[in-house]
Amino acid sequence: MTDAVRDMIARAMAGATDIRAAEAYAPSNIALSKYWGKRDAARNLPLNSSVSISLANWGSHTRVEGSGTGHDEVHHNGTLLDPGDAFARRALAFADLFRGGRHLPLRITTQNSIPTAAGLASSASGFAALTRALAGAFGLDLDDTDLSRIARIGSGSAARSIWHGFVRWNRGEAEDGHDSHGVPLDLRWPGFRIAIVAVDKGPKPFSSRDGMNHTVETSPLFPPWPAQAEADCRVIEDAIAARDMAALGPRVEANALAMHATMMAARPPLCYLTGGSWQVLERLWQARADGLAAFATMDAGPNVKLIFEESSAADVLYLFPDASLIAPFEGR
Amino acid sequence: MTDAVRDMIARAMAGATDIRAAEAYAPSNIALSKYWGKRDAARNLPLNSSVSISLANWGSHTRVEGSGTGHDEVHHNGTLLDPGDAFARRALAFADLFRGGRHLPLRITTQNSIPTAAGLASSASGFAALTRALAGAFGLDLDDTDLSRIARIGSGSAARSIWHGFVRWNRGEAEDGHDSHGVPLDLRWPGFRIAIVAVDKGPKPFSSRDGMNHTVETSPLFPPWPAQAEADCRVIEDAIAARDMAALGPRVEANALAMHATMMAARPPLCYLTGGSWQVLERLWQARADGLAAFATMDAGPNVKLIFEESSAADVLYLFPDASLIAPFEGR
Repeated sequence: MTDAVRDMIARAMAGATDIRAAEAYAPSNIALSKYWGKRDAARNLPLNSSVSISLANWGSHTRVEGSGTGHDEVHHNGTLLDPGDAFARRALAFADLFRGGRHLPLRITTQNSIPTAAGLASSASGFAALTRALAGAFGLDLDDTDLSRIARIGSGSAARSIWHGFVRWNRGEAEDGHDSHGVPLDLRWPGFRIAIVAVDKGPKPFSSRDGMNHTVETSPLFPPWPAQAEADCRVIEDAIAARDMAALGPRVEANALAMHATMMAARPPLCYLTGGSWQVLERLWQARADGLAAFATMDAGPNVKLIFEESSAADVLYLFPDASLIAPFEGR
Repeated sequence: MTDAVRDMIARAMAGATDIRAAEAYAPSNIALSKYWGKRDAARNLPLNSSVSISLANWGSHTRVEGSGTGHDEVHHNGTLLDPGDAFARRALAFADLFRGGRHLPLRITTQNSIPTAAGLASSASGFAALTRALAGAFGLDLDDTDLSRIARIGSGSAARSIWHGFVRWNRGEAEDGHDSHGVPLDLRWPGFRIAIVAVDKGPKPFSSRDGMNHTVETSPLFPPWPAQAEADCRVIEDAIAARDMAALGPRVEANALAMHATMMAARPPLCYLTGGSWQVLERLWQARADGLAAFATMDAGPNVKLIFEESSAADVLYLFPDASLIAPFEGR
């Protein structure tokens, strides 16, 4: 099997010398047109392209350096993780992409700046920041597009967290995966706003990775999804280019609900949205009938994320007083 | 256009003489494998077969007789309806199938025995009872299969309400619709129980007829539905034959959620289930994780209907104290 990412890392690592300390930050992101389904699990290649907005200063800070103790250490939010911890194992398995078989003990220190209450997954920002920090620690000659390809291996959505702002992750066509990576969209929208409405969650039914696989394998309604998602990407990118919330919002919401529909039709059904999520949606839809131009998107969890323009921010916060507000272009 | 039903009624009506008073009762029904999508709107032919359970003494009583006033009258639950009332117009348009262009003023009196709080649609039982009463009033020589074909024109699911117990509505293959009618399944299951869990409803987003059309026309996930629903019918009929709730229940629930998934993916999305519906489902799923063998199905409204065996009835009513319990084979 040829694998563009593994080959690229091997080439870059051939010139690597010592390990030095390196730090990196990567923002989390929310997909406006969703990634749901892989065409290649080993290379983490998606069935369809996706478009996201990065969450500015909500993300992951990661430091990579040689471990003084002679063995690997992973610290997360100030705690040294047990070597058997799932997060630690996943991070070190990712570092192995760089180390190959070489004995290069590492200390990886990650700090998450996403409020816990927001309940956002940190794998996108986590693997993007880890990729950048590893490349820095080994002094590798890789550009952002290369880093996006590598981050994709850790977590698909991490391919988009290499950049701020709007990012498209191209599906790509090549079997070796070299053309499946993020592309920053040169589209600034200073008034664009995001609100995260946290919903009490029960036990998560499945990780998003497992849920995705279960859906692809068992949902009779999955087959039409990739083509529709690809079409949605184009419409969404055009609406962003036109800063047209009236065109963007309904398509973003329909895309998210269609993704959840593919899961709901899985066998057994998979429902990440809870009664609380639907109550938030009902309140939103009622407000929209009354004129509010805010639209929802939901991922593999019960929280509801809203997109709207700055002029609607006060109304959104009146409706959802506990929501967290993000201005993705502020100060950029 | 040849139309098997209209031709059959015309033949039968050729021998009809006077109008006499005739009464009929038909039960409501709940689809265990859903009807969602027409292949022919004029003939009301479905894209897939469906299987239902009739609701015993929850249904419609209808009387048809000549009107003494010289013009049509429709009484519903004790009230004389305005000629412009939607229900009255629909009932009289249906009676016109029998009258053709002849001046035969009718008095139609219907009484619904379904508790209003249950929020069940009455069109299935209403059109089945009206069909039977009209055939009686005109003294027509039609068997139950003929009546099912005719009732189908009034409301698709009425084709199943001609019988008690389990009924399959065969999709049929013929263009003229003659082979699309209900078939009573010779499968008694005395311990089979149904509970209706009423959920506060907001304004109904769409009639089920409009919702069905909107879904077929706009949902990118609709195309795989008919084949899956057809396959579900077979599995569901086999599970009923085996009185195997462990095989029946999960399939019934998955079929209903897949139907709702087709709507949720429509553009704009169509969500008949509310936050309250999902809370009922979450409570059910929690109880099921604790061992309760009860399963849900939902139609074009927020209520949740549960199926289970008599041995689980006490647990179901403990969980949902306000639910209405139905024993479809009791006294039959």
